[in-house]
Amino acid sequence: MVKSNGASMLDCTIRDGGLVNNWDFSVEFVRELYASLSKAGVDYMEIGYKNSPKLLPSEGVGPWRFCDEKLLKETIPEKTFTKLSAIVDIGRVDEDDILPCEESHIDLIRVACYLKDVNKALALVEKFHSMGYETSVNIMAVSNALEPDLIEALEKLNESNVDIIYVVDSFGSLYNRDIKYLVEKFKEHAPKKKLGIHAHNNLQLAFSNTVLAAENGVQFLDSSVYGMGRAAGNCPTELVLGYLDDPQYDIAPVLDVLEKLFIPLREEVEWGYLIPYTITGLLNEHPRTAMALRKSENKDEYRNFYDQFTSVETMPTEE
Amino acid sequence: MVKSNGASMLDCTIRDGGLVNNWDFSVEFVRELYASLSKAGVDYMEIGYKNSPKLLPSEGVGPWRFCDEKLLKETIPEKTFTKLSAIVDIGRVDEDDILPCEESHIDLIRVACYLKDVNKALALVEKFHSMGYETSVNIMAVSNALEPDLIEALEKLNESNVDIIYVVDSFGSLYNRDIKYLVEKFKEHAPKKKLGIHAHNNLQLAFSNTVLAAENGVQFLDSSVYGMGRAAGNCPTELVLGYLDDPQYDIAPVLDVLEKLFIPLREEVEWGYLIPYTITGLLNEHPRTAMALRKSENKDEYRNFYDQFTSVETMPTEE
Repeated sequence: MVKSNGASMLDCTIRDGGLVNNWDFSVEFVRELYASLSKAGVDYMEIGYKNSPKLLPSEGVGPWRFCDEKLLKETIPEKTFTKLSAIVDIGRVDEDDILPCEESHIDLIRVACYLKDVNKALALVEKFHSMGYETSVNIMAVSNALEPDLIEALEKLNESNVDIIYVVDSFGSLYNRDIKYLVEKFKEHAPKKKLGIHAHNNLQLAFSNTVLAAENGVQFLDSSVYGMGRAAGNCPTELVLGYLDDPQYDIAPVLDVLEKLFIPLREEVEWGYLIPYTITGLLNEHPRTAMALRKSENKDEYRNFYDQFTSVETMPTEE
Repeated sequence: MVKSNGASMLDCTIRDGGLVNNWDFSVEFVRELYASLSKAGVDYMEIGYKNSPKLLPSEGVGPWRFCDEKLLKETIPEKTFTKLSAIVDIGRVDEDDILPCEESHIDLIRVACYLKDVNKALALVEKFHSMGYETSVNIMAVSNALEPDLIEALEKLNESNVDIIYVVDSFGSLYNRDIKYLVEKFKEHAPKKKLGIHAHNNLQLAFSNTVLAAENGVQFLDSSVYGMGRAAGNCPTELVLGYLDDPQYDIAPVLDVLEKLFIPLREEVEWGYLIPYTITGLLNEHPRTAMALRKSENKDEYRNFYDQFTSVETMPTEE
């Protein structure tokens, strides 16, 4: 009924979940999560963004948006099984903030970019690669890419030093057949690279898209505990742990943090299957308008929200 | 990105949702839901069980467990687009309660059975068929069937007067590949019959299993609004409406009842993605032990609950 595919799990709870609570996780929370993921056999934990406080406001924002090395070493004095990753955004990272890998707690740096910024991403990748890091490029909003642009980017990435290329369903709008199509496309045009999948759950398809990707040879599987992540959230870590038939993985330690940390947290902040996110997913739209709706008095006025998208005059504007 | 397959939608909110709230829906609620489903183009609404109050306690239980014809006609004085269905359980239905189809509000009678009761189901099917009803047999707990038993049942059903045979993932434990395997098996051994799918959401796979079934020729797609149904619930009606690219279907009227009826209802009664149901799904177990846990003081003690299943001494007992 299930299978193992030699996949690697990457839990991005602190990073993507940080988009929900402004990275306001305590040191103890992050430490306990790391211990649990390590016991569960999760390969990587993405502990936050490695963006620069010089380039982004840091007031009212938790420290996992910047991942200062001192903080990482205080939080996790001794790394056990699980490696650490951090993600950077184009234009928000200062390369001088980054230590050589051998002096850093971080093992993998992931570069998130839109298709139009692939050259910028590649410049960062080569820099981080030369510093000793594993690297990935995470192409966001791939559901909106024109195929020739995508192919050109994949061919460049294939010739670079990047280790992993991710299919990112930023809007949670991709059906199983779309993921299958994209994975084939990525394999065809970047055959030298490992692939990854980062799915969102707007249409309750994040887990099934992740399983489908794994069955089609994708090796890096992103997930977060209880699906915590922006808007509809991500593929749940506990489901991937339950699925993979590999002695490395054990769901039990994650059940501990689910009951201890995540049930109380979900009472305070909101993510998951909520109809406004379903609507933006169905319409292949960024969830930002739905997130604004959920913060307003009209948070459950679904019909009005939907009608705004289908009437030209009242189309929600971009931020 | 999406396709239409000439599928028929069957919304089972009142029937399967009734398992959550003891069928305690007001007449107005059911009337409003019917109007919305009819506007949305949903083909069938399952309005409840057609079990007999002579064979089951009726005290403290809403009327949709029995679906008295007088009540149905008062609730929906004039049927519009959507046909009505009701389900019966083996040993809980009194055939003498059932009017001939032309005198009844009900169009389709579905017979739910375990594999061991297929002959009993077939006797009921032939009776209801002779009374003018469309009929289906819904084989429950198909994840626990031995293949020779399943094949024998399918071959019998193929030679009967039943219109539709359902694949029912009662425990929400089936992955996409399992559904694909079963649908092929059903097609092979019951080629004369239409097929249906009834999925549960323990592993967040109900919608994707339903889409997969539709893409493989399954014509009857069960769902419920906001996924309301026993334990982890069902495939959400709104997601199927959003998926099917067919001018018959429109998600908008269902958004109206979601915000008006289902958000308040979900505050009162519980269903959906909750970790104890994930655990029973992963273990291919009936959700009854998880439902009992959710009604206890220990409702969020996931690790203990899981450990009970993996230790022989403390295995939760059947009801």
